[in-house]
Amino acid sequence: MKSIKDPVHGYVEVDTPAITLLDSPLLQRLRHIKQLGFSYLVYPGANHTRFEHSLGTMHLAGVMCRQLGVPEYDRLLIVTAALLHDIGHGPFSHSIEPVMEELTGRSHHRIGNLLKSDTLAPLLEKIGVDRNELGEVLAGDHQLSGIIHGELDVDRMDYLLRDAHYTGVPYGTVDAQRLIRSTLLSEEGIVIHESGINAAESLLIARTLMRPAVYFHHVSRIAETMFNHAVLRHLENKSPSEVTGMMYMDDVSCIHALRTSDCSVTREFAERIFCRHLYKRALYVGREQVNIKALTEYRGIPAQREIAEEIAGIAGVDPSKVLVDIPELPSGMSLHVQVKNRHRVMELAEVSPLLNTLNDNRLEQWRLGVYTPPELTDEVEIIASSLFHVKPLTMQDKLPV
Amino acid sequence: MKSIKDPVHGYVEVDTPAITLLDSPLLQRLRHIKQLGFSYLVYPGANHTRFEHSLGTMHLAGVMCRQLGVPEYDRLLIVTAALLHDIGHGPFSHSIEPVMEELTGRSHHRIGNLLKSDTLAPLLEKIGVDRNELGEVLAGDHQLSGIIHGELDVDRMDYLLRDAHYTGVPYGTVDAQRLIRSTLLSEEGIVIHESGINAAESLLIARTLMRPAVYFHHVSRIAETMFNHAVLRHLENKSPSEVTGMMYMDDVSCIHALRTSDCSVTREFAERIFCRHLYKRALYVGREQVNIKALTEYRGIPAQREIAEEIAGIAGVDPSKVLVDIPELPSGMSLHVQVKNRHRVMELAEVSPLLNTLNDNRLEQWRLGVYTPPELTDEVEIIASSLFHVKPLTMQDKLPV
Amino acid sequence: MKSIKDPVHGYVEVDTPAITLLDSPLLQRLRHIKQLGFSYLVYPGANHTRFEHSLGTMHLAGVMCRQLGVPEYDRLLIVTAALLHDIGHGPFSHSIEPVMEELTGRSHHRIGNLLKSDTLAPLLEKIGVDRNELGEVLAGDHQLSGIIHGELDVDRMDYLLRDAHYTGVPYGTVDAQRLIRSTLLSEEGIVIHESGINAAESLLIARTLMRPAVYFHHVSRIAETMFNHAVLRHLENKSPSEVTGMMYMDDVSCIHALRTSDCSVTREFAERIFCRHLYKRALYVGREQVNIKALTEYRGIPAQREIAEEIAGIAGVDPSKVLVDIPELPSGMSLHVQVKNRHRVMELAEVSPLLNTLNDNRLEQWRLGVYTPPELTDEVEIIASSLFHVKPLTMQDKLPV
Amino acid sequence: MKSIKDPVHGYVEVDTPAITLLDSPLLQRLRHIKQLGFSYLVYPGANHTRFEHSLGTMHLAGVMCRQLGVPEYDRLLIVTAALLHDIGHGPFSHSIEPVMEELTGRSHHRIGNLLKSDTLAPLLEKIGVDRNELGEVLAGDHQLSGIIHGELDVDRMDYLLRDAHYTGVPYGTVDAQRLIRSTLLSEEGIVIHESGINAAESLLIARTLMRPAVYFHHVSRIAETMFNHAVLRHLENKSPSEVTGMMYMDDVSCIHALRTSDCSVTREFAERIFCRHLYKRALYVGREQVNIKALTEYRGIPAQREIAEEIAGIAGVDPSKVLVDIPELPSGMSLHVQVKNRHRVMELAEVSPLLNTLNDNRLEQWRLGVYTPPELTDEVEIIASSLFHVKPLTMQDKLPV
Repeated sequence: MKSIKDPVHGYVEVDTPAITLLDSPLLQRLRHIKQLGFSYLVYPGANHTRFEHSLGTMHLAGVMCRQLGVPEYDRLLIVTAALLHDIGHGPFSHSIEPVMEELTGRSHHRIGNLLKSDTLAPLLEKIGVDRNELGEVLAGDHQLSGIIHGELDVDRMDYLLRDAHYTGVPYGTVDAQRLIRSTLLSEEGIVIHESGINAAESLLIARTLMRPAVYFHHVSRIAETMFNHAVLRHLENKSPSEVTGMMYMDDVSCIHALRTSDCSVTREFAERIFCRHLYKRALYVGREQVNIKALTEYRGIPAQREIAEEIAGIAGVDPSKVLVDIPELPSGMSLHVQVKNRHRVMELAEVSPLLNTLNDNRLEQWRLGVYTPPELTDEVEIIASSLFHVKPLTMQDKLPV
Repeated sequence: MKSIKDPVHGYVEVDTPAITLLDSPLLQRLRHIKQLGFSYLVYPGANHTRFEHSLGTMHLAGVMCRQLGVPEYDRLLIVTAALLHDIGHGPFSHSIEPVMEELTGRSHHRIGNLLKSDTLAPLLEKIGVDRNELGEVLAGDHQLSGIIHGELDVDRMDYLLRDAHYTGVPYGTVDAQRLIRSTLLSEEGIVIHESGINAAESLLIARTLMRPAVYFHHVSRIAETMFNHAVLRHLENKSPSEVTGMMYMDDVSCIHALRTSDCSVTREFAERIFCRHLYKRALYVGREQVNIKALTEYRGIPAQREIAEEIAGIAGVDPSKVLVDIPELPSGMSLHVQVKNRHRVMELAEVSPLLNTLNDNRLEQWRLGVYTPPELTDEVEIIASSLFHVKPLTMQDKLPV
Repeated sequence: MKSIKDPVHGYVEVDTPAITLLDSPLLQRLRHIKQLGFSYLVYPGANHTRFEHSLGTMHLAGVMCRQLGVPEYDRLLIVTAALLHDIGHGPFSHSIEPVMEELTGRSHHRIGNLLKSDTLAPLLEKIGVDRNELGEVLAGDHQLSGIIHGELDVDRMDYLLRDAHYTGVPYGTVDAQRLIRSTLLSEEGIVIHESGINAAESLLIARTLMRPAVYFHHVSRIAETMFNHAVLRHLENKSPSEVTGMMYMDDVSCIHALRTSDCSVTREFAERIFCRHLYKRALYVGREQVNIKALTEYRGIPAQREIAEEIAGIAGVDPSKVLVDIPELPSGMSLHVQVKNRHRVMELAEVSPLLNTLNDNRLEQWRLGVYTPPELTDEVEIIASSLFHVKPLTMQDKLPV
Repeated sequence: MKSIKDPVHGYVEVDTPAITLLDSPLLQRLRHIKQLGFSYLVYPGANHTRFEHSLGTMHLAGVMCRQLGVPEYDRLLIVTAALLHDIGHGPFSHSIEPVMEELTGRSHHRIGNLLKSDTLAPLLEKIGVDRNELGEVLAGDHQLSGIIHGELDVDRMDYLLRDAHYTGVPYGTVDAQRLIRSTLLSEEGIVIHESGINAAESLLIARTLMRPAVYFHHVSRIAETMFNHAVLRHLENKSPSEVTGMMYMDDVSCIHALRTSDCSVTREFAERIFCRHLYKRALYVGREQVNIKALTEYRGIPAQREIAEEIAGIAGVDPSKVLVDIPELPSGMSLHVQVKNRHRVMELAEVSPLLNTLNDNRLEQWRLGVYTPPELTDEVEIIASSLFHVKPLTMQDKLPV
């Protein structure tokens, strides 16, 4: 038994199986992947990594297992899943995923492959965890999956608390202790007792408030869009193994690869990110300002590149001077959180009128962005507004920046 | 210049006028009035007082004046108002007010009288503050009143942060610094810049979450209802000056007066509160479970006493064994917060869809309570449910306790 | 199983035996006794009570018992002792003790009597704790007493953390978690493993830094000295049962008794404390400025009253206008903390050179005080300096105020 | 005026000159240099960077200038110096310095060169700061240098608070606000008022407690020694410009350079650090266990390499399997802090008996280390103990690990 100091949870206890996993390169690699991708460009303190988040998630998973009275083997299973849940991440966390999907034509649930890999399989055997069962937990198919993957899971509790600690943004305060205490195991899986509704709402509120302030801050999005374009250009003519190889890099080696790329656009973008000489917003508009049809039309990287190049063409500038960023609309939270009282089990949405508004709020926070070097913003704004049929005046009235 | 250590704001600077006021019995008395009334019976840490809250409010008022570039005399006026805004409170803060209104037949804006009193007037003269202008600020009639009295005022910022610090409840986190930075002075009075909408929403959310968890926790309400009944019985046949005198007491002397009352019911209630042998909930139902007409019917203390006595009569117990607690429905928040961007000023509700839901949520939190000694809860529940036409089953389904 | 929110430890779990004790008037009374006596006059946030401290101490005692693998019955015994360790306190915590000793001629280990009392004995029986064994634990005669009474006990850990939280003074940070983890049970009783030396030192440092900043802040000492004098005068001609009765009061009723005393000096002092119109320092000198022989001579309340009256006589003022405060010299810390490594057990002092200096430092912090109304300070300073043979110049040079 | 969220200080205001500097590559590079070098291998949260520390130092420097009433130009000068004080750091902060000194034969006060460089000079001109005066401030030759370089400077305040926040170690709590409030400007430069002695002591204590717990934690030292050896081997036969070039790298590019070095030992060490497969302690002994003469003999990298190779030779293993780490003895703190009261200015040591002990304590914390792969520790311990004339038994008795 060893204990590791963690600024969020105090001390995290790690037992022998956990140490075995922690000492492997699979987890040590996470020390070099920032939890919040490019948010450190907005919040200078946001340099925390997937490694400490994995430790914290494991810690809370253990606390929840104790609360639920889960038998020893299941506890080991869940705690292992919590520790490993992020090992499939590519460099800069989520940033790289859409690009990889575009380039390889398939989703990157790398975790599946990893479970069968030569690196992980012997470790799982050593600590006595069945890899198929572990796969089920991580895929959300196990009765206890809800501890790690769900609307109110320990993964979210840890990252909301942790992101608040490192950014200094005070919106991430979740009463994780109370929420875990309210958790019950029913036939439907993990449910919360009605005495935890307040705590559950506080988590959903934290998620909603952290979104525009941190996760979707426009500076992060600009940096991420630039990063994605740099990766795309870098890998354009590379072999499939080189493409896949990038997912196994960490932040450090990925940035190095981009800064020394044979593509000059990639090199320039990598340098700009490194020195925080970022593109600026030429357009940044909400859902009501753009045609919903347009949204469907521009789904996916190729469509967004196409319109970006069209804008650049009209402006008479190099295509790489215009980037278009149209994220998916946020999905609703917590449709499937079950609440239990002494009479019956019901949906959280039924007892919490807040839930629907928070979901509306998340939709309101959505933005379509067009980014360009500072000297081109005015020009690009006009062209892009016209192409996207944006009503410029009303937009300015209603949108907080 | 002196500085006082405050666990919420670090250090609070107090200048000569503030020291003059702090040293007066009017403010020293607030050291003996708990900020949260009977919440210490739920949260053992909630022993903080109106005194430190007044200091903290003064501190934030000063910060906001600096932000707004308010001229020196106005700053003195506002800071003085912030320091004095609570000196009119009776013992246990808000608890005693409705009883006093009932007994004296008028509202207790004691602050008005205090401004003219022999205690305060010479102090105001000494520090050079005009008492009429001060009265305007405190009455909400001054252009700068919004700093202290409004939906997003420094009074609220301080108490939300402070109540969170002392109770340990993590819902009170308000980004006061950011909110104050977003404040502007316009012709309409205090408005917030649109960049502060997030911070403003976080304050409104904090208010909403703190309500059921702290301000309207059922144990506080039971204690408060018992306290009110004790006061009522104690003052029943007292002279007008004895009645009014109670408003000038602090917690200590008020509880002493009740424990040594000539009324045996008062003495018993005071003892029960002191030892935390409280009544329990026989009925605790939300707005949808009770007839709205019924609500109107039972408005005011006499009506509530009448129905309580009716219940006690049917149960065949002493009238003091049943207490009925029907609070006012919560009023909506923030209808009049103005938000400004570079084009125009608008209502917060227009840009924040969250606001309406939070107000709905507050209505959902409302409860009608009937309290009685533990041994009588079952019996009283049946009688009260019938008298209030409560549908007992549905209520149990939907209401978190 | 119930859990109580505590701002210092998060949640404190209370099981059935603990609830039984908590619900008794013996513990509820501690809600009305401030942990830090008159420190709220310096730190407006310092209104926390012995009640929450008792809860916190119980919590840490439970954590330590788990760490040491103590058997269930012993755990119950220790946890009960932790919860009850302060029930013998009189009003305003330690303040009143010396006066009571003076008046009754004996020490006030009231806890001994309480264990046999009609209030406590049946409760102990109900929860299955042997009162003799409990008495041993509380008297320091049990093998596990060190958990509660010792140089590094959970009582101290809790109050240092708690006092820091409520005063806002940042010196009380103790790594309680690490310290508890380093605790071992050996034949010598509780010892700490050498890996915990750092954490142990941090606790001793916290104790040393909190002393002048909080526990012996001159304003607290003045208030306490005034309070003691008020009590002394109030009880002068009272019956023995009235004298003893004061120890059973809480802060509230004690202050009320003093404000309505038949002794006019007591009434005036109580009023002055209430309104913070305190005496000021006429003399405040360290150990090196006063004759050690003088110290011995003025040991005890009567001797201090005598010299105070002599000073007042020379100044030609009423005897109650001069108060003399000569505390005991602080005893050394941690002479008996045992440290264990894989080879042997040794004294902490042997491995921690810091310890001796901290003890020197505590001696340096000691002060003899003479207090008087503001208008008399200059005159009394001269007389008192002469009577105590103080060298006024050097003193001013060396002593921080 | 812009404000940046900082988890330690809340918000840091940055004005136009500061933005000009922040946007330059000189400061952006600090985003990629960890404040605590390899401490993240012990404290997973310790990923904070020199960038945010520079911001924080600038913030506190501004607060202190306001406190001291420094004129506007001097404020700009000091604040600029605070922002730039760390731009001369090589990768992994202090770690690389001794190696670079060894390789280039001179100290690396790179800041001097930087001031004259083409990158910095035009920026200084733009913001109106004289580079010679700035050089004086940074070299400690300016009357106000003490704000940034001294025993109680804002640099130290910031990093102690910051390191505590990110590691979670609770020893770094410094009352920076109080300390800054106690600062005065006298003819001797920056002095502290005697009312700040407590706060000053708390900073010196924090420095002392953080040393073994964080700054000189054995795991950091092992990693640092391995890193230094990797750099040394990598640069052995490189050109002077390649050697110097390494000082201009950041953590990322440095680690990349080592992992792709043409030296196989360097590559292995870089990989081991990356995966946390570190050497272990074969010997770790305090000052009293080793001959002082021996210390002098082994001063400097070449002497330490020589003895390491001798040990390896006797053990019959490759020379890179043994690393010897003999740090300088810590110098005494605060010999020159001046304390002022109303009569005179004196040395802190004169009024604070704690100071000398803390310095003794720091000497006690010193360790000589010999590190080797886990499988060789026993063998190497015997050889090294003999070569260093270590008395193995006593050492084990007295030293905390």
